[in-house]
Amino acid sequence: MATIGGLAERLAEVVGDSHVLATPGAMEPYACDESSLAPHFPDLVVRPGSTAEVSRVLREASLRGVPVTPRGLGTGLTGGAVPVRGGLVLSLERMDRVLEVDEANLVAVVQPGLRLQELHRAVESRGLFYPPDPASLESCSIGGNVAVNAGGPRAARYGITRHYVLGVEAVLADGRVMRYGGKTIKNTTGYALPHVLIGSEGTLAVITEVTVRLLPLPREQVDVLVPFPDAGGAARAVGEIVLGKRVIPAAVELMDRAAVTAAARFLGREVPHRDAGAQLLIQLDGNDRDDLEAQVEALGGLCLDHGAADVLVATGPQARERLWSARRAVLEAVKRLAAHADFLDVAVPRARIPDFLDRIGTVAPAWGLDLAAWGHAADGNIHLAAYCPKPDPDWPRALGTLTAAVHGAALDLGGVIASEHGIGCLKRRYLGQALDSSSVELMRGVKEVFDPQGILNPGKILP
Amino acid sequence: MATIGGLAERLAEVVGDSHVLATPGAMEPYACDESSLAPHFPDLVVRPGSTAEVSRVLREASLRGVPVTPRGLGTGLTGGAVPVRGGLVLSLERMDRVLEVDEANLVAVVQPGLRLQELHRAVESRGLFYPPDPASLESCSIGGNVAVNAGGPRAARYGITRHYVLGVEAVLADGRVMRYGGKTIKNTTGYALPHVLIGSEGTLAVITEVTVRLLPLPREQVDVLVPFPDAGGAARAVGEIVLGKRVIPAAVELMDRAAVTAAARFLGREVPHRDAGAQLLIQLDGNDRDDLEAQVEALGGLCLDHGAADVLVATGPQARERLWSARRAVLEAVKRLAAHADFLDVAVPRARIPDFLDRIGTVAPAWGLDLAAWGHAADGNIHLAAYCPKPDPDWPRALGTLTAAVHGAALDLGGVIASEHGIGCLKRRYLGQALDSSSVELMRGVKEVFDPQGILNPGKILP
Repeated sequence: MATIGGLAERLAEVVGDSHVLATPGAMEPYACDESSLAPHFPDLVVRPGSTAEVSRVLREASLRGVPVTPRGLGTGLTGGAVPVRGGLVLSLERMDRVLEVDEANLVAVVQPGLRLQELHRAVESRGLFYPPDPASLESCSIGGNVAVNAGGPRAARYGITRHYVLGVEAVLADGRVMRYGGKTIKNTTGYALPHVLIGSEGTLAVITEVTVRLLPLPREQVDVLVPFPDAGGAARAVGEIVLGKRVIPAAVELMDRAAVTAAARFLGREVPHRDAGAQLLIQLDGNDRDDLEAQVEALGGLCLDHGAADVLVATGPQARERLWSARRAVLEAVKRLAAHADFLDVAVPRARIPDFLDRIGTVAPAWGLDLAAWGHAADGNIHLAAYCPKPDPDWPRALGTLTAAVHGAALDLGGVIASEHGIGCLKRRYLGQALDSSSVELMRGVKEVFDPQGILNPGKILP
Repeated sequence: MATIGGLAERLAEVVGDSHVLATPGAMEPYACDESSLAPHFPDLVVRPGSTAEVSRVLREASLRGVPVTPRGLGTGLTGGAVPVRGGLVLSLERMDRVLEVDEANLVAVVQPGLRLQELHRAVESRGLFYPPDPASLESCSIGGNVAVNAGGPRAARYGITRHYVLGVEAVLADGRVMRYGGKTIKNTTGYALPHVLIGSEGTLAVITEVTVRLLPLPREQVDVLVPFPDAGGAARAVGEIVLGKRVIPAAVELMDRAAVTAAARFLGREVPHRDAGAQLLIQLDGNDRDDLEAQVEALGGLCLDHGAADVLVATGPQARERLWSARRAVLEAVKRLAAHADFLDVAVPRARIPDFLDRIGTVAPAWGLDLAAWGHAADGNIHLAAYCPKPDPDWPRALGTLTAAVHGAALDLGGVIASEHGIGCLKRRYLGQALDSSSVELMRGVKEVFDPQGILNPGKILP
């Protein structure tokens, strides 16, 4: 039985009075993430400042059987950081430092509460590169990225968070500290514990330090916006771009008309070719300007052959930032402009995107919902927003039906129902649809090994 | 209690008479791998031809509590596929097909017994690329690669086996079949079960199918041999090559004089600059010939500035193959030319290679051993052969001392004692030196979840 009594005082001794929050006002920011999940208040919020403090907090919680929900910067989209069973929110926001950028070994050592953009800045100023770039990069934490195995636009060429994590330090549910891995790319010393933790959404341990691999920063970058008459045509062009050019672009983002329109309205901006059925935002990078320009030329020709209306090359960082800020604003835009909105994150094998879009295109209107689609076309990851402009009592039922249809379509086409946002709380009910029973049973077993009391982030991932 | 009685007959019903081997002569090839571990004979060798047969074999074994040692093509270097506790060897050699090369989605689906070189050929003939390339690529299996998370020369630029596995089918110890993942790069559907299996050396499940990610094949490739006066100087140049050029070469292989000499003697070939203290074999790849040639020029200049005696560019596939076959022959050469030989596989953060070589340079002579060093300098992975030209009764003791010293040096410098060859049987005793007790305990827990009876590859990894 969980018992909170006396815990606040004990935790205050560990982290200091000002880092134990107990009033509704102070705890409100920790009751939600960026998903549609309703707020759930914890009993306490605790903000440790070091691994030793995290360890002591977990020891206190485990002694009392109190649930602990680890939290980075709260930008998740499936409720993973929301304390649905009360207890403690363990916020890692104070552990936000770049501990080391080791240029000679192309690695960085960071704390989990570090904002991803700060990591990007710290390494790029030294000519180095940390590729993962979820759209929330200005506000999300690297610890959250590891917890959910975040992806982003650059995944098709550069891979996902998992591909960059070389080592972790983590605190187990009972307060023990483990470390595995470090500054080597290769490591076959027994089972790959960091890879069990990556994507486990805080249900197995609390990650307190991450060592990531870096690359040399490409010297040159070109961004191109290509409007197409329809999303299917744009998606079909993507396959040709990858296979025809023998180069996987750094990013190939697809946005349908609804996504572009929402972003433009939200930002109060004119957007070129706003009425196109879909747009591709393509990023190429490399060290040789001439080579990149030749690639842009070839790629542009290829898009025009596939029905593109135009090929707009962003010149300079400002133009580039305009394109990308519009892309990154889509989710927030839909949220703000609709009375009801929810988000889906599926992936299909890249060449099946046109089939997927065809299949879902008919579902939303049948239920009176609007749908916006966007995402990372080069790796088959499609985000969908279902929304209603006006309040509608039928919304929950319509959303449920739509979600089931979208998940069914993704699975039918060989895809997945959780691509880069995790399962969290909101997708738990679909886990059994997506995985075989042996896999779910193995996951339960792994959970019990790491957290036999079940205090770490209860109510997440496993149904 | 294990009971073999009647098992041969039962297995023959499952896989056919000719695929159950029971005589010493027939079983001999399955009693060893490529390590120095003495032969251990199983009670039976069984060679299933399908996932369904693997499932039935495991069900029979688990009903009887009989140990099962899964085996790819037996090229491991730590005894991982050697049946040290008897029972069954489950050889996957008959499951050797490329099931699909899906060009549109840049993936291949393969069976575990497929030789790596066959996978390379199948995809390269279509302009596609599967980068992992352990030196045993002509004889090792993709299933073995996954089981040990194999690396190879191209890891620094392209990553290791783990970075290419998108999905697996595996048979659990009790015969249940699980599948997880498929043709999408991103997947955050619960815990990453394939990544638990990758590197688990057949102790958790038997992998029966693998879906791997492919890249477009670079159009051009250049290989360069660069002799240096000494290994430390060569290793120091590697850091400059990576950081100075803003490009991580596809491969940067380091071979010291002893390694080069052994390969040359073994192959009966003249090798250029055979008396150099060390050689770097550098591979660059890309799509633009001019760009590659400019890179070679810059890289050559940089090496000459760092004391290189020469820069030899291999022109054409034959010259290239000569260089690489010499590199790949080192291990076999040392084995054949010495009375006693054993191999170590450590990694240190790349910039620490010179320190590592300095530290171990004094150890071997002190014990009357010869030492050859080679490996993947761009990712810090060094292979060492300790050997005696003539039989020496003191060899086991000297080897033990040397191994402890080498492991100690690697760990002191922030490295690992098992880089791409796994732990297997031979390194079990060192696991506690390399990992904290919490990590080892978690690994034991994971093992129990997957294989509660402990029948899968007993005597491996965990001490």
